[in-house]
Amino acid sequence: MNVKARAWWWLVVPLSVTCTVSAQAFRPEEVIAVERAALDRWGRGDPQGFLETYAPEVSYFDPSVGARIDGLPAMQKMLGPIAGKVRIDRYEMINPLVQRHGDLAVLTYNVVNYIRKPDGSEVPTDRWNSTAVFRRIDGRWRTIHSHWSFTKPDVKQTTGG
Amino acid sequence: MNVKARAWWWLVVPLSVTCTVSAQAFRPEEVIAVERAALDRWGRGDPQGFLETYAPEVSYFDPSVGARIDGLPAMQKMLGPIAGKVRIDRYEMINPLVQRHGDLAVLTYNVVNYIRKPDGSEVPTDRWNSTAVFRRIDGRWRTIHSHWSFTKPDVKQTTGG
Repeated sequence: MNVKARAWWWLVVPLSVTCTVSAQAFRPEEVIAVERAALDRWGRGDPQGFLETYAPEVSYFDPSVGARIDGLPAMQKMLGPIAGKVRIDRYEMINPLVQRHGDLAVLTYNVVNYIRKPDGSEVPTDRWNSTAVFRRIDGRWRTIHSHWSFTKPDVKQTTGG
Repeated sequence: MNVKARAWWWLVVPLSVTCTVSAQAFRPEEVIAVERAALDRWGRGDPQGFLETYAPEVSYFDPSVGARIDGLPAMQKMLGPIAGKVRIDRYEMINPLVQRHGDLAVLTYNVVNYIRKPDGSEVPTDRWNSTAVFRRIDGRWRTIHSHWSFTKPDVKQTTGG
Protein backbone atom coordinates (compact mmCIF):
# COMPACT_ATOMS: atom_id res chain seq x y z
CA MET A 1 0.00 0.00 0.00
CA ASN A 2 1.47 3.37 -0.96
CA VAL A 3 1.24 6.54 1.12
CA LYS A 4 -1.63 8.08 -0.84
CA ALA A 5 -3.83 5.00 -0.52
CA ARG A 6 -3.23 4.83 3.23
CA ALA A 7 -4.28 8.49 3.66
CA TRP A 8 -7.55 7.78 1.86
CA TRP A 9 -8.61 4.91 4.06
CA TRP A 10 -7.79 6.73 7.25
CA LEU A 11 -10.53 9.23 6.40
CA VAL A 12 -13.11 7.06 4.65
CA VAL A 13 -13.32 4.13 7.07
CA PRO A 14 -14.34 6.12 10.17
CA LEU A 15 -17.01 8.01 8.15
CA SER A 16 -18.59 4.78 6.90
CA VAL A 17 -18.63 3.26 10.35
CA THR A 18 -20.31 6.33 11.88
CA CYS A 19 -23.11 6.37 9.29
CA THR A 20 -23.79 2.66 9.60
CA VAL A 21 -23.95 2.70 13.38
CA SER A 22 -26.26 5.73 13.33
CA ALA A 23 -28.71 4.07 10.91
CA GLN A 24 -28.75 0.78 12.76
CA ALA A 25 -29.18 2.39 16.16
CA PHE A 26 -32.55 3.95 15.35
CA ARG A 27 -35.63 2.16 16.58
CA PRO A 28 -39.10 3.69 16.03
CA GLU A 29 -39.88 2.74 19.64
CA GLU A 30 -37.51 5.49 20.83
CA VAL A 31 -39.70 8.21 19.37
CA ILE A 32 -42.92 6.50 20.43
CA ALA A 33 -41.60 6.22 23.99
CA VAL A 34 -40.89 9.96 24.13
CA GLU A 35 -44.48 10.68 23.05
CA ARG A 36 -45.95 8.12 25.46
CA ALA A 37 -44.04 9.61 28.37
CA ALA A 38 -45.54 13.04 27.55
CA LEU A 39 -49.04 11.55 27.12
CA ASP A 40 -48.74 9.71 30.46
CA ARG A 41 -47.96 12.96 32.27
CA TRP A 42 -50.66 14.84 30.34
CA GLY A 43 -53.28 12.34 31.51
CA ARG A 44 -52.23 13.03 35.11
CA GLY A 45 -52.75 16.75 34.60
CA ASP A 46 -49.09 17.57 33.99
CA PRO A 47 -48.37 19.55 30.81
CA GLN A 48 -44.62 19.70 31.53
CA GLY A 49 -44.06 16.38 29.77
CA PHE A 50 -44.98 17.90 26.43
CA LEU A 51 -43.33 21.22 27.24
CA GLU A 52 -40.02 19.50 28.04
CA THR A 53 -40.22 17.61 24.76
CA TYR A 54 -40.82 20.71 22.63
CA ALA A 55 -37.81 22.26 20.89
CA PRO A 56 -37.51 26.07 20.98
CA GLU A 57 -38.76 26.25 17.36
CA VAL A 58 -41.94 24.21 18.04
CA SER A 59 -45.04 25.06 16.00
CA TYR A 60 -48.49 23.85 17.06
CA PHE A 61 -52.10 23.35 15.97
CA ASP A 62 -55.05 22.05 17.96
CA PRO A 63 -58.83 22.56 17.58
CA SER A 64 -58.91 25.28 20.26
CA VAL A 65 -56.56 27.72 18.54
CA GLY A 66 -57.57 30.19 15.84
CA ALA A 67 -54.10 30.26 14.32
CA ARG A 68 -50.85 28.28 14.56
CA ILE A 69 -48.87 28.83 17.75
CA ASP A 70 -45.16 29.38 17.25
CA GLY A 71 -42.31 28.87 19.68
CA LEU A 72 -41.76 27.40 23.12
CA PRO A 73 -42.59 30.55 25.17
CA ALA A 74 -46.03 30.75 23.52
CA MET A 75 -46.61 27.05 24.21
CA GLN A 76 -45.59 27.46 27.86
CA LYS A 77 -48.08 30.31 28.16
CA MET A 78 -50.81 28.20 26.58
CA LEU A 79 -50.26 24.84 28.30
CA GLY A 80 -48.87 25.99 31.66
CA PRO A 81 -52.29 27.04 33.07
CA ILE A 82 -53.76 23.64 32.16
CA ALA A 83 -51.77 22.00 34.98
CA GLY A 84 -54.09 19.96 37.20
CA LYS A 85 -57.09 20.41 34.89
CA VAL A 86 -56.78 17.32 32.71
CA ARG A 87 -57.61 13.77 33.75
CA ILE A 88 -57.35 10.81 31.42
CA ASP A 89 -57.50 7.42 33.14
CA ARG A 90 -56.32 5.47 30.14
CA TYR A 91 -55.46 6.16 26.53
CA GLU A 92 -55.09 3.87 23.60
CA MET A 93 -52.42 4.81 21.07
CA ILE A 94 -53.58 3.30 17.79
CA ASN A 95 -51.31 2.24 14.94
CA PRO A 96 -48.33 4.55 15.57
CA LEU A 97 -46.19 5.12 12.47
CA VAL A 98 -42.70 6.61 12.44
CA GLN A 99 -41.36 7.99 9.15
CA ARG A 100 -37.72 8.67 9.92
CA HIS A 101 -35.21 10.32 7.61
CA GLY A 102 -31.90 11.22 9.19
CA ASP A 103 -32.43 13.32 12.29
CA LEU A 104 -36.11 14.01 11.62
CA ALA A 105 -38.94 11.62 12.43
CA VAL A 106 -42.64 12.08 11.77
CA LEU A 107 -44.76 10.20 14.33
CA THR A 108 -48.47 9.84 13.54
CA TYR A 109 -51.15 7.96 15.43
CA ASN A 110 -54.77 7.97 16.48
CA VAL A 111 -55.56 8.06 20.16
CA VAL A 112 -58.69 7.38 22.19
CA ASN A 113 -58.92 8.72 25.74
CA TYR A 114 -60.94 7.02 28.46
CA ILE A 115 -62.36 8.05 31.84
CA ARG A 116 -63.06 5.40 34.47
CA LYS A 117 -66.46 5.63 36.13
CA PRO A 118 -67.07 4.84 39.84
CA ASP A 119 -68.39 1.40 38.86
CA GLY A 120 -65.05 0.64 37.20
CA SER A 121 -66.29 0.79 33.62
CA GLU A 122 -64.44 2.93 31.07
CA VAL A 123 -65.99 5.56 28.81
CA PRO A 124 -64.24 6.94 25.72
CA THR A 125 -64.20 10.72 25.99
CA ASP A 126 -62.48 11.86 22.82
CA ARG A 127 -60.65 10.60 19.76
CA TRP A 128 -57.72 12.38 18.16
CA ASN A 129 -55.51 12.44 15.11
CA SER A 130 -51.97 13.31 16.16
CA THR A 131 -48.90 14.34 14.18
CA ALA A 132 -45.63 15.00 16.00
CA VAL A 133 -42.49 15.86 14.09
CA PHE A 134 -39.34 15.13 16.07
CA ARG A 135 -35.80 16.32 15.53
CA ARG A 136 -32.81 14.63 17.13
CA ILE A 137 -30.94 17.41 18.90
CA ASP A 138 -27.84 16.50 20.92
CA GLY A 139 -28.95 12.88 20.87
CA ARG A 140 -32.46 13.61 22.19
CA TRP A 141 -35.65 13.44 20.12
CA ARG A 142 -37.53 16.73 20.54
CA THR A 143 -40.78 17.92 18.98
CA ILE A 144 -40.50 20.70 16.40
CA HIS A 145 -44.14 20.49 15.29
CA SER A 146 -47.34 19.09 16.76
CA HIS A 147 -50.81 18.95 15.17
CA TRP A 148 -53.81 17.68 17.13
CA SER A 149 -57.25 17.32 15.60
CA PHE A 150 -60.46 15.47 16.40
CA THR A 151 -61.02 12.20 14.58
CA LYS A 152 -64.10 12.54 12.35
CA PRO A 153 -65.71 15.32 14.39
CA ASP A 154 -69.42 16.06 14.19
CA VAL A 155 -69.05 19.67 13.14
CA LYS A 156 -71.80 22.28 13.16
CA GLN A 157 -69.80 24.79 11.14
CA THR A 158 -66.16 25.33 10.28
CA THR A 159 -65.77 29.06 9.87
CA GLY A 160 -65.13 29.79 13.53
CA GLY A 161 -61.46 30.69 13.04
CA MET B 1 2.92 20.02 0.22
CA ASN B 2 3.68 16.34 0.78
CA VAL B 3 1.74 13.48 -0.79
CA LYS B 4 -0.36 12.75 2.28
CA ALA B 5 -1.58 16.33 2.62
CA ARG B 6 -2.54 16.50 -1.05
CA ALA B 7 -4.62 13.32 -0.75
CA TRP B 8 -6.56 14.87 2.16
CA TRP B 9 -7.60 18.01 0.36
CA TRP B 10 -8.63 16.19 -2.77
CA LEU B 11 -11.37 14.51 -0.71
CA VAL B 12 -12.34 17.22 1.75
CA VAL B 13 -12.71 20.23 -0.55
CA PRO B 14 -15.42 18.76 -2.85
CA LEU B 15 -17.43 17.60 0.20
CA SER B 16 -17.42 21.09 1.75
CA VAL B 17 -18.48 22.76 -1.47
CA THR B 18 -21.39 20.36 -1.97
CA CYS B 19 -22.77 20.97 1.51
CA THR B 20 -22.46 24.75 1.26
CA VAL B 21 -24.19 24.98 -2.10
CA SER B 22 -27.01 22.73 -0.89
CA ALA B 23 -27.65 24.86 2.21
CA GLN B 24 -27.53 28.16 0.31
CA ALA B 25 -29.79 26.95 -2.46
CA PHE B 26 -32.81 26.34 -0.24
CA ARG B 27 -35.53 28.96 -0.18
CA PRO B 28 -38.77 28.38 1.79
CA GLU B 29 -40.65 29.69 -1.23
CA GLU B 30 -39.77 26.50 -3.14
CA VAL B 31 -41.82 24.36 -0.76
CA ILE B 32 -44.63 26.91 -0.52
CA ALA B 33 -44.83 27.04 -4.32
CA VAL B 34 -45.25 23.24 -4.53
CA GLU B 35 -48.13 23.43 -2.05
CA ARG B 36 -49.75 26.42 -3.79
CA ALA B 37 -49.64 24.65 -7.14
CA ALA B 38 -51.50 21.68 -5.60
CA LEU B 39 -54.02 24.00 -3.88
CA ASP B 40 -54.63 25.88 -7.15
CA ARG B 41 -55.53 22.64 -8.93
CA TRP B 42 -57.60 21.41 -5.97
CA GLY B 43 -59.74 24.56 -6.12
CA ARG B 44 -60.44 23.82 -9.78
CA GLY B 45 -61.65 20.31 -8.92
CA ASP B 46 -58.39 18.57 -9.78
CA PRO B 47 -56.96 16.30 -7.06
CA GLN B 48 -54.00 15.23 -9.24
CA GLY B 49 -51.97 18.21 -8.03
CA PHE B 50 -51.81 16.78 -4.54
CA LEU B 51 -51.53 13.19 -5.75
CA GLU B 52 -48.51 14.05 -7.92
CA THR B 53 -46.87 15.73 -4.94
CA TYR B 54 -47.32 12.78 -2.59
CA ALA B 55 -44.39 10.40 -2.13
CA PRO B 56 -45.14 6.65 -2.12
CA GLU B 57 -44.84 6.62 1.70
CA VAL B 58 -47.36 9.45 2.25
CA SER B 59 -49.47 9.31 5.41
CA TYR B 60 -52.60 11.42 5.78
CA PHE B 61 -55.22 12.78 8.20
CA ASP B 62 -58.28 14.90 7.51
CA PRO B 63 -61.58 15.34 9.41
CA SER B 64 -63.43 12.90 7.15
CA VAL B 65 -61.30 9.84 7.89
CA GLY B 66 -61.74 7.57 10.90
CA ALA B 67 -58.09 6.52 10.90
CA ARG B 68 -54.83 7.61 9.25
CA ILE B 69 -54.52 6.76 5.58
CA ASP B 70 -51.19 5.24 4.56
CA GLY B 71 -49.54 5.12 1.15
CA LEU B 72 -50.08 6.59 -2.30
CA PRO B 73 -52.45 3.89 -3.65
CA ALA B 74 -54.85 4.49 -0.74
CA MET B 75 -54.68 8.25 -1.35
CA GLN B 76 -55.38 7.80 -5.06
CA LYS B 77 -58.41 5.71 -4.17
CA MET B 78 -59.63 8.37 -1.74
CA LEU B 79 -58.96 11.55 -3.74
CA GLY B 80 -59.42 10.28 -7.28
CA PRO B 81 -63.26 10.23 -7.15
CA ILE B 82 -63.30 13.83 -5.89
CA ALA B 83 -62.27 15.06 -9.37
CA GLY B 84 -64.69 17.74 -10.57
CA LYS B 85 -66.50 17.95 -7.22
CA VAL B 86 -64.56 20.73 -5.51
CA ARG B 87 -64.81 24.41 -6.31
CA ILE B 88 -62.86 27.07 -4.47
CA ASP B 89 -62.82 30.46 -6.17
CA ARG B 90 -60.07 31.89 -4.01
CA TYR B 91 -58.02 30.80 -1.03
CA GLU B 92 -55.94 32.76 1.38
CA MET B 93 -52.80 31.02 2.66
CA ILE B 94 -52.11 32.59 6.03
CA ASN B 95 -48.69 32.87 7.66
CA PRO B 96 -46.92 29.91 6.00
CA LEU B 97 -43.93 28.65 7.99
CA VAL B 98 -41.23 26.31 6.70
CA GLN B 99 -39.08 24.45 9.23
CA ARG B 100 -36.39 22.88 7.10
CA HIS B 101 -33.65 20.52 8.28
CA GLY B 102 -31.63 18.86 5.54
CA ASP B 103 -33.89 17.17 3.04
CA LEU B 104 -37.03 17.40 5.18
CA ALA B 105 -39.22 20.49 5.46
CA VAL B 106 -42.32 20.98 7.59
CA LEU B 107 -44.73 23.48 6.02
CA THR B 108 -47.57 24.74 8.21
CA TYR B 109 -50.21 27.35 7.47
CA ASN B 110 -53.82 28.33 7.97
CA VAL B 111 -56.02 28.66 4.94
CA VAL B 112 -59.42 30.22 4.30
CA ASN B 113 -61.41 29.18 1.23
CA TYR B 114 -63.86 31.49 -0.54
CA ILE B 115 -66.73 31.05 -2.97
CA ARG B 116 -67.73 33.96 -5.24
CA LYS B 117 -71.43 34.73 -5.35
CA PRO B 118 -73.26 35.84 -8.53
CA ASP B 119 -73.14 39.44 -7.30
CA GLY B 120 -69.34 39.22 -7.18
CA SER B 121 -69.01 39.20 -3.41
CA GLU B 122 -66.92 36.51 -1.71
CA VAL B 123 -68.03 34.24 1.12
CA PRO B 124 -65.60 32.28 3.30
CA THR B 125 -66.67 28.62 3.26
CA ASP B 126 -64.15 26.90 5.51
CA ARG B 127 -60.99 27.46 7.48
CA TRP B 128 -58.24 24.91 7.87
CA ASN B 129 -55.07 24.12 9.77
CA SER B 130 -52.60 22.43 7.42
CA THR B 131 -49.38 20.54 8.04
CA ALA B 132 -47.42 19.17 5.09
CA VAL B 133 -44.10 17.42 5.62
CA PHE B 134 -41.95 17.42 2.51
CA ARG B 135 -38.94 15.34 1.63
CA ARG B 136 -36.51 16.27 -1.14
CA ILE B 137 -36.30 13.20 -3.37
CA ASP B 138 -34.16 13.42 -6.52
CA GLY B 139 -34.19 17.21 -6.23
CA ARG B 140 -38.00 17.45 -5.96
CA TRP B 141 -39.92 18.30 -2.79
CA ARG B 142 -42.58 15.65 -2.24
CA THR B 143 -45.11 15.25 0.57
CA ILE B 144 -44.54 12.35 2.97
CA HIS B 145 -47.22 13.44 5.46
CA SER B 146 -50.27 15.70 5.32
CA HIS B 147 -52.63 16.62 8.16
CA TRP B 148 -55.72 18.74 7.52
CA SER B 149 -58.04 19.89 10.29
CA PHE B 150 -60.71 22.54 10.74
CA THR B 151 -59.63 25.74 12.45
CA LYS B 152 -61.51 26.08 15.75
CA PRO B 153 -64.46 23.92 14.69
CA ASP B 154 -67.82 24.18 16.41
CA VAL B 155 -68.00 20.54 17.44
CA LYS B 156 -71.08 18.75 18.71
CA GLN B 157 -69.16 15.69 19.84
CA THR B 158 -65.76 14.20 19.21
CA THR B 159 -66.21 10.48 19.65
CA GLY B 160 -67.34 9.81 16.11
CA GLY B 161 -64.15 8.00 15.06
